[in-house]
Amino acid sequence: MTAEPRPAADPAPHTFGRPVARVEDDALLRGRARFVDDIHLPGLLEAAFVRSPHAHARIRSIDCEPARAAPGVVAVMTFDDLRDVLTSDRLVVAMPSPSYLLEVHRPILARHETVHVGEAIAVVIAASRYLAEDAAALVEVDYDPLPVVADCHAALAEGGARVHADLPHNVVAELDTAYGDVDAAFAGAAEVVEDRFWLHRGGSHSMECRGVVASLDPLEDRLTVWSSTQTPNVAQRLLCDLLARDSDAIRVVTPELGGGFGPKLVFYPEEAVVAASAVKLGRPVKWIEDRREHFVVTTQERDQHWEMAMALDAEGRVLGMRGSLLHDHGAYTARGTNVVFASAITVPLAYNVPAYRLASKLLLTNKVPVTPIRGAGQPQAAFVMERLLDQAARRLGLDRAEIRRRNLVQPEQMPCRKPMKLRGGTFVVLDSGDYPAAQRLVMEKAGWDDFPRRQAEARAQGRHIGLGLVNYVEGTGRGPFEPVRVRVAANGRIHVASSATAMGQGTKTMLAQVVAEQLGGAIENVVVTTGDTAAMTLGFGGFNSRQAVMAGSSAHAAAVKVRAKALEAAAHMLEARPDELTIVGTHIRMRGNNRTIGLGEVARALEGIAGYVLPGNLEPGLEATEQVIVHDMAFSNGSAVAEVEVDVETGHVQVLRYLLAHDCGQMINPMLVDGQVIGGIAHGIGNALFEWMGFDANAQPLTNNYGEYLLVTAPEMPSIELFHRESPSPLNTLGIKGVGESGVIPTPAVIASAVEDALQPFGVRISHAPLSPMDILDLIARADGA
Amino acid sequence: MTAEPRPAADPAPHTFGRPVARVEDDALLRGRARFVDDIHLPGLLEAAFVRSPHAHARIRSIDCEPARAAPGVVAVMTFDDLRDVLTSDRLVVAMPSPSYLLEVHRPILARHETVHVGEAIAVVIAASRYLAEDAAALVEVDYDPLPVVADCHAALAEGGARVHADLPHNVVAELDTAYGDVDAAFAGAAEVVEDRFWLHRGGSHSMECRGVVASLDPLEDRLTVWSSTQTPNVAQRLLCDLLARDSDAIRVVTPELGGGFGPKLVFYPEEAVVAASAVKLGRPVKWIEDRREHFVVTTQERDQHWEMAMALDAEGRVLGMRGSLLHDHGAYTARGTNVVFASAITVPLAYNVPAYRLASKLLLTNKVPVTPIRGAGQPQAAFVMERLLDQAARRLGLDRAEIRRRNLVQPEQMPCRKPMKLRGGTFVVLDSGDYPAAQRLVMEKAGWDDFPRRQAEARAQGRHIGLGLVNYVEGTGRGPFEPVRVRVAANGRIHVASSATAMGQGTKTMLAQVVAEQLGGAIENVVVTTGDTAAMTLGFGGFNSRQAVMAGSSAHAAAVKVRAKALEAAAHMLEARPDELTIVGTHIRMRGNNRTIGLGEVARALEGIAGYVLPGNLEPGLEATEQVIVHDMAFSNGSAVAEVEVDVETGHVQVLRYLLAHDCGQMINPMLVDGQVIGGIAHGIGNALFEWMGFDANAQPLTNNYGEYLLVTAPEMPSIELFHRESPSPLNTLGIKGVGESGVIPTPAVIASAVEDALQPFGVRISHAPLSPMDILDLIARADGA
Repeated sequence: MTAEPRPAADPAPHTFGRPVARVEDDALLRGRARFVDDIHLPGLLEAAFVRSPHAHARIRSIDCEPARAAPGVVAVMTFDDLRDVLTSDRLVVAMPSPSYLLEVHRPILARHETVHVGEAIAVVIAASRYLAEDAAALVEVDYDPLPVVADCHAALAEGGARVHADLPHNVVAELDTAYGDVDAAFAGAAEVVEDRFWLHRGGSHSMECRGVVASLDPLEDRLTVWSSTQTPNVAQRLLCDLLARDSDAIRVVTPELGGGFGPKLVFYPEEAVVAASAVKLGRPVKWIEDRREHFVVTTQERDQHWEMAMALDAEGRVLGMRGSLLHDHGAYTARGTNVVFASAITVPLAYNVPAYRLASKLLLTNKVPVTPIRGAGQPQAAFVMERLLDQAARRLGLDRAEIRRRNLVQPEQMPCRKPMKLRGGTFVVLDSGDYPAAQRLVMEKAGWDDFPRRQAEARAQGRHIGLGLVNYVEGTGRGPFEPVRVRVAANGRIHVASSATAMGQGTKTMLAQVVAEQLGGAIENVVVTTGDTAAMTLGFGGFNSRQAVMAGSSAHAAAVKVRAKALEAAAHMLEARPDELTIVGTHIRMRGNNRTIGLGEVARALEGIAGYVLPGNLEPGLEATEQVIVHDMAFSNGSAVAEVEVDVETGHVQVLRYLLAHDCGQMINPMLVDGQVIGGIAHGIGNALFEWMGFDANAQPLTNNYGEYLLVTAPEMPSIELFHRESPSPLNTLGIKGVGESGVIPTPAVIASAVEDALQPFGVRISHAPLSPMDILDLIARADGA
Repeated sequence: MTAEPRPAADPAPHTFGRPVARVEDDALLRGRARFVDDIHLPGLLEAAFVRSPHAHARIRSIDCEPARAAPGVVAVMTFDDLRDVLTSDRLVVAMPSPSYLLEVHRPILARHETVHVGEAIAVVIAASRYLAEDAAALVEVDYDPLPVVADCHAALAEGGARVHADLPHNVVAELDTAYGDVDAAFAGAAEVVEDRFWLHRGGSHSMECRGVVASLDPLEDRLTVWSSTQTPNVAQRLLCDLLARDSDAIRVVTPELGGGFGPKLVFYPEEAVVAASAVKLGRPVKWIEDRREHFVVTTQERDQHWEMAMALDAEGRVLGMRGSLLHDHGAYTARGTNVVFASAITVPLAYNVPAYRLASKLLLTNKVPVTPIRGAGQPQAAFVMERLLDQAARRLGLDRAEIRRRNLVQPEQMPCRKPMKLRGGTFVVLDSGDYPAAQRLVMEKAGWDDFPRRQAEARAQGRHIGLGLVNYVEGTGRGPFEPVRVRVAANGRIHVASSATAMGQGTKTMLAQVVAEQLGGAIENVVVTTGDTAAMTLGFGGFNSRQAVMAGSSAHAAAVKVRAKALEAAAHMLEARPDELTIVGTHIRMRGNNRTIGLGEVARALEGIAGYVLPGNLEPGLEATEQVIVHDMAFSNGSAVAEVEVDVETGHVQVLRYLLAHDCGQMINPMLVDGQVIGGIAHGIGNALFEWMGFDANAQPLTNNYGEYLLVTAPEMPSIELFHRESPSPLNTLGIKGVGESGVIPTPAVIASAVEDALQPFGVRISHAPLSPMDILDLIARADGA
């Protein structure tokens, strides 16, 4: 089903649409790539943080003196010690939303109250991390423990504890999503199904933890901050505000990242403290998050409790849905309401749901804040929708595929406007795609129709296999823009600069392919700079599967401009017409003869180096900056089938096969798409079966290492079969849609569906994730008893 | 006569056209400005050069070993030691010209032959300059002296010596400038005057000598070069070629300069050697030129020998001119043919000269290369033209003012196309101005008509006073472009970045005024970055009185765009129409009510920080980059009168008064214009009376310190009276013309005219400069004898 790559502008070797090798890999494989912790500067100091052991406590006093006397210590600082270089004691990072009831901005360093375990209270700067850690243990903080809110339900309890002692309640925001006449839908329903769902907290667990290095150049009075951030441009603006420095006086760079997955898009107290310390001390400072810190202070997600009902007619057509969502927000607003927003609009998105009402509450708890992680609320929504569809199918005696087929948005509805609005104010519009075809494709590949026979055979042998089927859409390509500059230098090298941020997913390769396609096809001639505010001031960075859509479109537009200008200038220099010329490799060739001119030579002429006149009276410079503006989202879609086997004695679930028919529009590099999707599936399997961030009743984290917190490893991974469809998005010239979060969205739902299918003999209903072996055994036991 | 400043876009305080205080001065006066020598880096090494003591010699061998063993020495390197990091052994810096007969590119370090005293042969890098100098004295170079060409006439001698042993002759280029029927003009002339003229070599003698610091950042593999260059962008491109580095991998910065005046626009061997050494050694390296080096290796100018005849009708109207020019080019081509080109076209420029022919030869000599110095060939041309007009006036019995009046280009001729072409291929067109009015103005202010009475009175007292009158034009605003970016940051500060380069003349103030005029008038809110390739890749820098015209126009265009966008966005945010809004200080105000919004708030909205939608669906960013393209030159003009008194006993010349009616179009800052003009006049008085770079018959420099080389000091400066006229240039929106070189152009000519006038009783004719007291006595003696 893979469509032909769009035609290239000239007969140079295609790079667009092909699985070309990643430009990042040479440096990575040779160990020459530089991650934050690889940054070594003369006189570098290292930071360790004094962190709260309590989920909620008043801070009576902080005594830094014993620590200050420790060996190798340069400074031990609370907020009061840093206040002269900071303009605020809080990080005001919340995305705008009318839904907030409370403002709970995160403190840079907690002063009078601490509201989650791990919250930073003081920083120790020393000659090494070891000495800093030793001294941090000597800081004496006198705590007065306060009542703790450990989960959403406790947060809502009448007369219960408060997450912040001085706040009137724990409801940080309320969000209502509604359209259609829901009550009429339920009144006229032939069937209603309903359930409660719960998806537990997990983390992103990037291979590289977070880190930040800050260094003040005394010569130029410029602060450079290398941070493991997905959004260096946003971090720069925040740091400019916090440190009262001009935008030219702070440079934020994202070096190589060992994974992002969402939590690294947040601006953290450590970034502010390390930057402020470097300014205050006039020496470079480094902090590298250790894995234990990652478990308690890097943001997490998923934690949502749903109650949802679905009304259907007798043929299984959905008439309406209504319900409520309790969302664990954690102790502060570290990003916004967007996880809940995404959850809320995603539930009915792939299907025709005429009426819908969801009341969502974002609840404070004494836990580390919740911000988007790959999928960002969408896996939960898919879980809720797809679990209810399975239940309805069973109730109505329909095949699970058939009920979906009857409800799916049809290709002839595209573009399909949904009666819900994005936060920018535009309607949600599914831009393109053939959802039923994707479902048919994956069913055919999975042998859906033959499965009941195989399942019956297996059951006869005492084996419990099951098949799940799930459709999903993914909102991608969040706007409004992401600038890219393409410049041909005098030596012929093509420099691409973008505020897009590489986190390991191949962003540089993506940009190089898009640009090389227009400028000769020699991808090795393209030098890409990402995530450096000195190279690109405007922009946002990486989140919401947006970079291929937004930066890719800008890169294409800029490369097209540069190409046209190069040909026009070369035409003047070669005394030819532009349409007689083409770019092959590093040279512009005239068709039909041997006349060529180097791209660098043309660039040199356009820089005015050669004399007093520019070729063809063109504007100077072989360069263009473009920032394509997009307000609508490009919706990827797909259909997943998982086959599992459940050991009913041990509760062990083995995922045997995983098939995904996936459509992210025109693919720039199918190999990178595969990598993104497979990574997302692995993450989703973790969410479905393993990853469980536990807290006790005092909100003390229970799972702070990989002995307790289970990640998917190779033996747990099934064989994965991907089938690409390419329905070009009409929203951008390249027809692309985002892909970074796709794999994870259907996975908890499809595995739950498959497990439930496998356990039909026991009448088990799956309504939560992750499903541990103990959960399986418990479900079987309870279903048996029922 | 000062015209009103052009109307501002809003009622904010005007800055354009006013003598506002320089934005540069706070840092300079407080000692916080940073010149090259103020750059201190950890591990900095210092360089000293081994230089040729011979004007011409073969190099038999270079023994670095004794120097390598000296204390503190890190490296002693000839070219061979640096060849692995350099792509060429020569600096190919010549501007394109069809006139060259020989290519004489400068070596980076001389290897087999040295062709002028001071030429660099090896470099010593040591822990300090002192240790480096000591070690440099230990480098043993075995020279075989060769015959020397010490001046232009020797260069042309049949069978004489060659400047480079292996070249066939010493004529590096020939340039013919001709239009009209010259021979017919002379055949039909009522009167012909002719003379030989000679203007001797001098230097620019900036207060700060040259210097360069280079440092390789191992983290980013980027070489930063701080150089006292007027053209950092050009230097960057040359260094990229020489060091085979990508353009992003070299940053060239011009820090504060203590004067440029032309020689600092040249790219020098020291810049290449210091940069290469920093790469080779992996450590930062500094070289600061000492004053003795400045005398022998920094480029010089003026040295021209002319023979010129002028044909006139009986009424004193010039019919034609013809002649020849021998130009001392020095030992290498360090820039181009542009000094001679400027001399050649300038001679007949201010006047109506129907026919003209000049044959110019650029001659190699064994002296330091010649490149443009303030005035760049134009003072010589004005000297030749104006001396001949004086002679013709005397011959025809006309007042010196009257003969000029009869020949000057008239205002009704403007724009006046001259039958000569610029090197870009366009005709020379005098763009605007009223030359006769300028002459009338300065004559009236000087009391020209009354002077004969005063002169007669003085003579009666035995005092010899004289008055000179000279008209001139200055070609300014060399294109093709100079980009400027204007950006409003989120904190409301206005950042201006330009490849224009500040050398002390107030470039940053000029740009700040142009931008502030459009954006609220708060000049203190504008931050200007000049001369930094990291801030602006394209562009050329400072020379040819071009920066106010080129960068000023670009700054205006960019600021106008930013203003329009700011008002449009603010209109959206304030729910107003753009035409109801104006910018005052740092805020946008709505007329007629109190609604305001900060520029920073608007910038923040346009950066998309506030949310998902840009105000008014505008393009993101409150920023614009403009690069106005200009192919024609804007010609400033003026008329100067000098009054001198000559002591006929001692030969001492005292300049009593200096009056200049000057027209550089619309002035951005009259105070800066005054500074530029007065500095040029001082320089011109030096050229007229003091500055003489002497060489003996072996081309050994004779005047290597300020005891021997005389600069103008305060007692030699007359009272200067400036009268500004403002004839806007039609070539750019602001109506501005350049001013940096104006003061120097008429000065040698007007002082010669005045001295000759003073010495009329002796029948002295002045045909050269500088005029030393010995020269005056000698001229009087010879005239007496005649």
